[in-house]
Amino acid sequence: MSTAWKSRYAQRTKNVQSSTIRELLKLTQKPEIISFAGGLPAPDVFPLDRFQEACRRVLEVNGHQALQYGASEGYEPLREMIARHISRYGIKARPQHVLITSGSQQALDLIGKLLINPGDRILVEAPTYLGALQAFTVYGAEYVSVPSDNDGLRTELLEPSLRLGPKFMYVLPNFQNPGGTTLSEGRRHELVLLADKYGIPIIEDDPYGQLRYEGEHLPPLVVIDRENLRRDESYSIGNVLYLSTFSKTLAPGLRLGWIVAPPDVISKLVQLKQGADLHTSTFTQVVAYEVAKEGFLDEHVKLIRKVYRERRDVMLDSLKHFFPAEVKWTHPKGGLFLWVTLPQGMDCRSLFEVALKENVAFVPGDCFYATSETNGEGCRHFRLNFSYGRPELIREGIRRLSVAVKQQLHELHAVHAG
Amino acid sequence: MSTAWKSRYAQRTKNVQSSTIRELLKLTQKPEIISFAGGLPAPDVFPLDRFQEACRRVLEVNGHQALQYGASEGYEPLREMIARHISRYGIKARPQHVLITSGSQQALDLIGKLLINPGDRILVEAPTYLGALQAFTVYGAEYVSVPSDNDGLRTELLEPSLRLGPKFMYVLPNFQNPGGTTLSEGRRHELVLLADKYGIPIIEDDPYGQLRYEGEHLPPLVVIDRENLRRDESYSIGNVLYLSTFSKTLAPGLRLGWIVAPPDVISKLVQLKQGADLHTSTFTQVVAYEVAKEGFLDEHVKLIRKVYRERRDVMLDSLKHFFPAEVKWTHPKGGLFLWVTLPQGMDCRSLFEVALKENVAFVPGDCFYATSETNGEGCRHFRLNFSYGRPELIREGIRRLSVAVKQQLHELHAVHAG
Repeated sequence: MSTAWKSRYAQRTKNVQSSTIRELLKLTQKPEIISFAGGLPAPDVFPLDRFQEACRRVLEVNGHQALQYGASEGYEPLREMIARHISRYGIKARPQHVLITSGSQQALDLIGKLLINPGDRILVEAPTYLGALQAFTVYGAEYVSVPSDNDGLRTELLEPSLRLGPKFMYVLPNFQNPGGTTLSEGRRHELVLLADKYGIPIIEDDPYGQLRYEGEHLPPLVVIDRENLRRDESYSIGNVLYLSTFSKTLAPGLRLGWIVAPPDVISKLVQLKQGADLHTSTFTQVVAYEVAKEGFLDEHVKLIRKVYRERRDVMLDSLKHFFPAEVKWTHPKGGLFLWVTLPQGMDCRSLFEVALKENVAFVPGDCFYATSETNGEGCRHFRLNFSYGRPELIREGIRRLSVAVKQQLHELHAVHAG
Repeated sequence: MSTAWKSRYAQRTKNVQSSTIRELLKLTQKPEIISFAGGLPAPDVFPLDRFQEACRRVLEVNGHQALQYGASEGYEPLREMIARHISRYGIKARPQHVLITSGSQQALDLIGKLLINPGDRILVEAPTYLGALQAFTVYGAEYVSVPSDNDGLRTELLEPSLRLGPKFMYVLPNFQNPGGTTLSEGRRHELVLLADKYGIPIIEDDPYGQLRYEGEHLPPLVVIDRENLRRDESYSIGNVLYLSTFSKTLAPGLRLGWIVAPPDVISKLVQLKQGADLHTSTFTQVVAYEVAKEGFLDEHVKLIRKVYRERRDVMLDSLKHFFPAEVKWTHPKGGLFLWVTLPQGMDCRSLFEVALKENVAFVPGDCFYATSETNGEGCRHFRLNFSYGRPELIREGIRRLSVAVKQQLHELHAVHAG
């Protein structure tokens, strides 16, 4: 007889499902569909020539090391480069405070593995990044959601939730996924003070921080926390773990992210990383280092900012031009996404069906809420990605979407009139 | 104040420690030491020219895909190639039965995540692969050890342990790490029948199967299981999950492994993989496919076999030449390791100290035992790697080691005489 595999699955897998986004994305694969659903960087800005040159050099000069097993902590020159690179944002980490991960997603998984006991509550924004929920749920996380608005997490609503004793707070302060919103400087200070007051640490996820198209860079939470604590320059302590990635600035196919944390936390994470995959690909680490090392990344990020800003502006203009006045949307100052709010009574799932018939797609907002009491709220929203498509497609896609929106709106009014 | 991070760690991390091997390896990093401790492939056989050419072509022809996000299941042409490749060993999998993982280590981690509830018993060989213990322990695994000899796991001792109801059996049938032993064909059949009889599935880990230096390839457990079940050609059912890797045949720095499993198991593993790291690096997958696709891998494996066989023979000859008759060792027919047994009363940890002074290193045997009752047994053994060093270094290393062994043996005799 054969093993009844399903009956052997561990308890922790019971709440794990395939990402709704993934299932939706399958519906949007047809070539005639203009999809704003994915969160993909624009492939046309990948620096292919630099990668060519880097691969050639790495294999010529350093091939034996680049193809061999490596340290679980990551490739030392890359850790040094990251420490140097983030110091411009005031994060004064040293290489020993940096762990290289297989993308930010693995950082979230390792943090879940490190910190979450089954039943632990995690405080998240409503809405929040779906992949974090996927990473945490498998370790038995439950959630407390705190609403956000155009200035990010509403810190004035935070205290009652902190008194529930969450294990940590998970926050995306810059150009949040899915909201496209940025946590204001005032709220950053409040958030860090509240974390300190209640002794609840913060996981600061910053995949998009460098992709700012207007305004000034705001201080990361980890920096504000350091300044408050003052007495420690060496990150041996702190209330914030900081995550970032090369996925949005270089290429997501490399799967390279990192965690900045106190050395004790790094060494425990390294042990977990050993068991999880020994180490991140030496080859992609050495190649990424070779591509990025001599200031190329700065130059390249400027290009990405230019391209994405233009696409964001085309999307904002098109929304203004085509969409009815009852519909609202965020004005993201960076990142990849904007967030649309439909009038009361409209439902993003029905709109999704109609939009598919118009050959355009997005991600329905309810996917991004951790707790069911806020799920109802999600039905009035959807997420649009503006980084992937070329401007002419963005314009045409928003036109198509406006047809679907108007049709749904018309039906809604008919119901109300009837 | 700062977060007391250690007090926030999850219960599951309590039994997680840095691999003893890793700690020992730090002691063996000095250039004057000849180390047989690591499990590293020989870098001098990495096919650097092929990688050069593959990277060049991939970035020229397929760069936008290779650097972009990809499917969690893995790069489709690579899955197809693996399915084709393993069919020569009788494993008739289709691409949908193959999940690409970030090395075999991630395969072990995902399987632990999928199957192990805290307190579940896992049946392992004594000795067994340390990395599997690391991957499983974090999910709360406990262990049942069954001894092995020159013909691998002693299946005649298996039934009492199966009656304890382990969640699964974890077995390395070919050129086992650390023993270097191979499960005999008769025992393979017995093992598969016992798995079926008790309804306890098998995780078959086969990183070294292709590196056979003498004798005939033996049928994988997954094939014997298929043949017994007969009625299913499509792997929709079965009692065996099969793991392998490109780490030993192509390059470990790529971090590319795979799991062959029934489609239901694959889809659940894919969900876990999404949460763990979204997907394995697209770039390394596409490059590995480009390197391996047109039969190159077969040719290359022939070269590896030739080089490693020679190194194994040098090690066996040197052992015979330099070592005292009281010491015994396995004669591995493939793989990377051989296993030395010291006379009663000698201790591998003390030997390790003395060996370091002689500038030679190995891994003490007690590292490879899952349960404490078999740990005492471990102290009489140690593991030697023969794939990494060049022949002249192997000979010199074994000579140095023999000095340490003789010295320890002398002391032992002196104690007995005294």
